Amino acid sequence: MTTSPRIAPASLRPTAEQLARFRLARGFASAAAACGLKPSGRADLALVSAERACSAAGLFTTNRVQAAPVVLDRERLAAAADRVRAVIANAGCANAVTGPRGLEDARRTAALVASRLGARDDEVLVLSTGVIGVPLDMDKIARGIAALAGPDASHDAASAAAAITTTDTCSKIAAEDVRLPAGVVELRGFAKGAGMIHPDMATMLAVITTDVAAPPAALDRALRAAADASFHAITVDGDTSTNDTVLLLASGASGVTLDQGSTAAFGAALERVCVALAKQIARDGEGATRLIEIAVSGAANAGQARRVGRTIAGSALVRTAIHGGDPNWGRILAAAGRSGEPIDPARVGLWFGDGDALQLLERGMPLPFDRAAAAALLRGDPVRVRIDLGLGDAAAVGWTCDLSADYVRINADYTT
Amino acid sequence: MTTSPRIAPASLRPTAEQLARFRLARGFASAAAACGLKPSGRADLALVSAERACSAAGLFTTNRVQAAPVVLDRERLAAAADRVRAVIANAGCANAVTGPRGLEDARRTAALVASRLGARDDEVLVLSTGVIGVPLDMDKIARGIAALAGPDASHDAASAAAAITTTDTCSKIAAEDVRLPAGVVELRGFAKGAGMIHPDMATMLAVITTDVAAPPAALDRALRAAADASFHAITVDGDTSTNDTVLLLASGASGVTLDQGSTAAFGAALERVCVALAKQIARDGEGATRLIEIAVSGAANAGQARRVGRTIAGSALVRTAIHGGDPNWGRILAAAGRSGEPIDPARVGLWFGDGDALQLLERGMPLPFDRAAAAALLRGDPVRVRIDLGLGDAAAVGWTCDLSADYVRINADYTT
Repeated sequence: MTTSPRIAPASLRPTAEQLARFRLARGFASAAAACGLKPSGRADLALVSAERACSAAGLFTTNRVQAAPVVLDRERLAAAADRVRAVIANAGCANAVTGPRGLEDARRTAALVASRLGARDDEVLVLSTGVIGVPLDMDKIARGIAALAGPDASHDAASAAAAITTTDTCSKIAAEDVRLPAGVVELRGFAKGAGMIHPDMATMLAVITTDVAAPPAALDRALRAAADASFHAITVDGDTSTNDTVLLLASGASGVTLDQGSTAAFGAALERVCVALAKQIARDGEGATRLIEIAVSGAANAGQARRVGRTIAGSALVRTAIHGGDPNWGRILAAAGRSGEPIDPARVGLWFGDGDALQLLERGMPLPFDRAAAAALLRGDPVRVRIDLGLGDAAAVGWTCDLSADYVRINADYTT
Repeated sequence: MTTSPRIAPASLRPTAEQLARFRLARGFASAAAACGLKPSGRADLALVSAERACSAAGLFTTNRVQAAPVVLDRERLAAAADRVRAVIANAGCANAVTGPRGLEDARRTAALVASRLGARDDEVLVLSTGVIGVPLDMDKIARGIAALAGPDASHDAASAAAAITTTDTCSKIAAEDVRLPAGVVELRGFAKGAGMIHPDMATMLAVITTDVAAPPAALDRALRAAADASFHAITVDGDTSTNDTVLLLASGASGVTLDQGSTAAFGAALERVCVALAKQIARDGEGATRLIEIAVSGAANAGQARRVGRTIAGSALVRTAIHGGDPNWGRILAAAGRSGEPIDPARVGLWFGDGDALQLLERGMPLPFDRAAAAALLRGDPVRVRIDLGLGDAAAVGWTCDLSADYVRINADYTT
């Protein structure tokens, strides 16, 4: 039997009740503690450990500047993705652009955890998020790792989800049970996001646990496919970070093995979990007051649909107009026009709202519309925009958030 | 003899005195009037006319959605760039995404001007800037064009420069006299910018007049070369508009012909004029409080230098950090790392300030630095950042402005 129903917060902010019943998948445990990296004194260290060595897959930032933990995890997953015992994550310091010392610190962090768990050093993965260019305070990390086994540690999964957040205003969690032919398996994920959010990848960390039994290669395929429709479909500010990582860990504790007959159902559930996390990240973009969903249809191919959608979602002018409830739809057209795709303005249709409530443009011709009604649709949450390119049958959906003056305030004074 | 010395406002905002002595090049006249497209009632229509048919070259937006006046001007310059009599420019309405009617309106605008000047319709070029998706109010345009010949019109060049501005907080002008072997020629340009500023091209209009005698092809080559180091090197928000246009008009009134021996000197002067206008545009980006100059050196090639510079200049996180005087230099590295260029973080050097006043990074290793001194450099105007990639000898310089909460305020409520 399953222990948790589906959790995908409708408001994109988990309720207290959803957080209270959030668990990792069977076979995993968590711990969270404060080690002093967050000036607030809140928990900033999270450990996810597997009862026994599990299978894992990872997706990492495409930024050429890669943080030390990214370098370490890539190396470890390439060597032995079937033998992961734990993930240790810290917020408050990205351990990026820290030179050879940074890699040493990441290794040392993993070794400290390994020694506590009786695991091998190379069975531990590391995640870091926070300021770039500052070395990890290893005294704090060492004390924190010791504290994870002490009386002040929290062992509920919600505490682990909270510990990895930085400028996030809420935790991001998702859970789903999926019935496969051989039985029910659990998917449980948590993530952090907020700024530097952009495809391939956002400034985000996510750890998704499952109790399915699957080899790393199968997990890798499923994770890549799910990320295309989720983590690669969100943008907050066009910046990608040095630390972005999504890990999928499979304990096998369900006794259900992923096989040909169950791959599609598992993949679909994983995609739903990833989409739920991705939308929570976009909704909680720095300074955001609402989620914006950009649907592109009528594209010549899926790549075109994605690129047009990303360009619209990435437009500061579109995002500020929506923030102000200003139905200045010309900016959406202008963004589509600079996407690099050969769109034909004379074929484009544009709609606002659920179920294409309000049409603004038909085959390139502006339609008269009720400005108050349009403004009201832009003040809803989520805001829905659909653009049809009139070129083919491909479609894509992506998400961003409105751009408020608070985004600037949050980012103008981050390290100081 | 020349009538005007060089004008390139050091503060990037022309002084009253500089505006007062701003003239177009010999052989050109201007007129400005209010036709009611700007709700403020300020002048929103500018005419630049040549005493006799002049040579011209144009650069246009790379956006696939092209405004009607862009379509018209491209067509006219392709057909007869050696026979331009006038440029009519309006602010307050972009005449973009307005369908076949938009093109008709642009043609009609040109025809109204042509009839006043006794020119042929196709000898008049049109520029429009403002809201997208709203048809041009042709009654206002017609009345305005009539007013350009009436008692309420202003004939000083500064009024024309002011008439084309929208959310700009100041006019952008530049002037330079250049001594060629056969005599001195004048270069006089004005521009508008503010938002949707990005290479290829920005939401900007610029009209540069010169009294040199030159065929359109020579003007075109000179303009393209000058734009690479100026208009294509600025970014405010990564958005490119549907209307961006730079026109170079040459009257020949100096009697000096551009030839092999003078092309280099003329090109260098044109580039200085374009850079002066481009920097004024970047400095006056919406909500800007200071100019940011990003110098990239040590690149493997010029394209790499430009792309790394553009990515840094386009980063909302870099621009907000500088706005806040926050020396969070990791964001500069992260932006360089996502530029798509194969940079090697272990070779990168980074400096703030004039003459590399403060070094933050040496071959990928963070250096201890005085935070207060770094913050002070980021609060200066202009802010100077240099990044050396350590890969080769190529370099590029680009400009942007800081990103303030006012950018959001200005753009959240533009049409309403």
